[in-house]
Amino acid sequence: MALYVQALKSSSEVGSSSIDQIQSQKAPTTGLGFTGLAPLDASRLTFTHTANSRAVPLSNSPEVLSGETCTDHMITCQWTASGGWLAPELKPYGPLSLMPTSSSLHYAIQCFEGLKLYRGFDGRLRLFRPFRNAVRMLDSAKRISLPSFRPEEWVKLVAKLCAVDGPKWLPKERSGHFLYIRPTLISNDPSLSVKRPAKALFYIVISCLPAVDEREKGLRLLASQADMVRAWPGGFGYVKLGANYGPSMLAGDEAKKKGFEQILWLFRNENGIREVTEAGASNFMLVWRTREGRLQLATAPLDRQIFLDGITRRSILDLARERLSGDSDGGEGGEKIEIKERRLSMDDIVAACEEDRIVEAFAVGTSYFVSPVSLIQYGEKALEIPMVEGSTGVYARLFKAWLKAIMYGLEKHDWAYLVDSKE
Amino acid sequence: MALYVQALKSSSEVGSSSIDQIQSQKAPTTGLGFTGLAPLDASRLTFTHTANSRAVPLSNSPEVLSGETCTDHMITCQWTASGGWLAPELKPYGPLSLMPTSSSLHYAIQCFEGLKLYRGFDGRLRLFRPFRNAVRMLDSAKRISLPSFRPEEWVKLVAKLCAVDGPKWLPKERSGHFLYIRPTLISNDPSLSVKRPAKALFYIVISCLPAVDEREKGLRLLASQADMVRAWPGGFGYVKLGANYGPSMLAGDEAKKKGFEQILWLFRNENGIREVTEAGASNFMLVWRTREGRLQLATAPLDRQIFLDGITRRSILDLARERLSGDSDGGEGGEKIEIKERRLSMDDIVAACEEDRIVEAFAVGTSYFVSPVSLIQYGEKALEIPMVEGSTGVYARLFKAWLKAIMYGLEKHDWAYLVDSKE
Repeated sequence: MALYVQALKSSSEVGSSSIDQIQSQKAPTTGLGFTGLAPLDASRLTFTHTANSRAVPLSNSPEVLSGETCTDHMITCQWTASGGWLAPELKPYGPLSLMPTSSSLHYAIQCFEGLKLYRGFDGRLRLFRPFRNAVRMLDSAKRISLPSFRPEEWVKLVAKLCAVDGPKWLPKERSGHFLYIRPTLISNDPSLSVKRPAKALFYIVISCLPAVDEREKGLRLLASQADMVRAWPGGFGYVKLGANYGPSMLAGDEAKKKGFEQILWLFRNENGIREVTEAGASNFMLVWRTREGRLQLATAPLDRQIFLDGITRRSILDLARERLSGDSDGGEGGEKIEIKERRLSMDDIVAACEEDRIVEAFAVGTSYFVSPVSLIQYGEKALEIPMVEGSTGVYARLFKAWLKAIMYGLEKHDWAYLVDSKE
Repeated sequence: MALYVQALKSSSEVGSSSIDQIQSQKAPTTGLGFTGLAPLDASRLTFTHTANSRAVPLSNSPEVLSGETCTDHMITCQWTASGGWLAPELKPYGPLSLMPTSSSLHYAIQCFEGLKLYRGFDGRLRLFRPFRNAVRMLDSAKRISLPSFRPEEWVKLVAKLCAVDGPKWLPKERSGHFLYIRPTLISNDPSLSVKRPAKALFYIVISCLPAVDEREKGLRLLASQADMVRAWPGGFGYVKLGANYGPSMLAGDEAKKKGFEQILWLFRNENGIREVTEAGASNFMLVWRTREGRLQLATAPLDRQIFLDGITRRSILDLARERLSGDSDGGEGGEKIEIKERRLSMDDIVAACEEDRIVEAFAVGTSYFVSPVSLIQYGEKALEIPMVEGSTGVYARLFKAWLKAIMYGLEKHDWAYLVDSKE
């Protein structure tokens, strides 16, 4: 498995979107490390349709705002260490039955992914770079001792659930809207021993989440204090484990009480310098002018493995490299922009603010999409970030437009994955 | 709540066992911060006895070794942000029903405790310092945004479940044996929003765990490498969150593959010095002779909050201070021992090994009790630790004997909490 994922990764480091292009490719069975055990196999999916089909709530109705409403069905798939993956089941959405000793509930042996189903302006349903999510869940699973699977099968299962519930829950008249898909992999081992689970459960649900609104004021971020550190080198901040989310809520709540939307997580490096890592559970990007006068899009590098390799982050970097830098035509005003994954210290940001070199900043991720930042509170310092077009900056607006064009089918692009919903 | 717990803690810092003595004391209702909401109340417990009473497995039978076998009953208690705690229910042991979106499964909003029920040589059932567990779960709950409760009520519920299942599952003829109690507090909020849960579930199960055997060879520990760090200042290593356990399994598995029993977790401090923090999920203690020739019992201090404030650790320190140091009569040979919570660097330990100053080392905790350590593998260096009495050192044997005397009723002590099992 490790080798196969590695191969996927390195090929994608080279090209821009090799992972997104492998969707039709067959994975070598022997490369997945569980020869003799049944692999995850989307073609074995069984279908049990609900007899209690529910009404679809209006966008931004209380049911949607609660974050509790899911579509009619879910997919579940059991795994055992002795047999591998059983046949996946599509069935009515409903509660799971877990033993009180399940190690998912005691030792946080759990990981998840988040992606969206988009209803295009052409009436088609699409996913955005779902193989990225699949491969990231493999990384998460490995880190938390959960089983492996073929990314293609994972994506096919996600797409099959979307094909069943998408037409009703995200109908054609809701073009430009989305549903939120939550694939989840948990231990289902009922032993209190702290050990690699012998049973696991993979499941996929689709939730109705509220539309991402344009915030008039932009995000106000509170830089984290030394007594609250989200992740550290040698830890697990780079994967999507439950263990990264619960423990960071306390700091997030304190920020909200003080009137901020999110924590800007800092990391104090080996030289005592405070570096920016991410904003809430989103990646953080900055457009600024360097001291030498170059226009630069900067975001923290992945090398320390202390925050998530975001798919929105990666897509923006890819698009910006292709369309705004180097040999491209440059941005709106025609000025080329340097794209840099680099350490971002708070000292540098403070200095750039004082010297009026900040162009804009934004948080990027599947949930928050591209959210302009208007303020960073760093100790006593309130750093105001420009929002030249009222509620956004030029680049945040541009990246959103580019991404939306792909997600909603206004532009043909191999990052879009069409769901065969037979409508 | 914070104030009340604070009060409990500081009083216990002063006296030796104030927390253990408050069992009959009434907590001030107003001190718990949820006036108007129903508090956790053991007197509201309802009883539904099982109709399918199961056979008690033999000690160390496969059912016991699996870690999956629980007693006939469990206690569950629901909490909601709007109403507080509902009436707790004692009912047949069985699966929990959780929504697939429960934030316990996505964001690791979960914490637990572990304590034992002892069958004394006088035929009585006892708990050991259960208020310590209750107060620690309060600390855990606070860190992971779960609700508060009165420690007395928590302990009463634990004792009530023990009173129902103890007589059958730990009968009088099993004196000197124990069952393992697992109180667990999880979010039961079915919203995918990353937010403080509006619903929670507290439950208690009792598991049959194998007896802790004397290991002939002692524990062999593998010192952690820089690429695997369990906890860090500003994190949550000091509380009993699921998030501390799952992510550390990968390193534990690698240690086992290499023939070691546990990881010895190191922390690289701000000066680049590698300090010992804990062994697996147990605290680490060392008896050595200082360069100045003093006999010293040393263990890492709690101040950085990177490992658990273990109850066995604390009890050994308390007993050693009382019986071996200062004005006491001293240990077996009559030599007094200095008790020190101090930083323990690997460099110091290596030097002490080379200079033959190590007397013994052991890992201490509820699961592993007091387990002598025979070897620490630190990079290329294999540090052999003396075991003067074959399978143990003098002090490990002494602390075990002292603790067992209290746990199994050979010595009357206010750390023992008698369960009223009406046998």
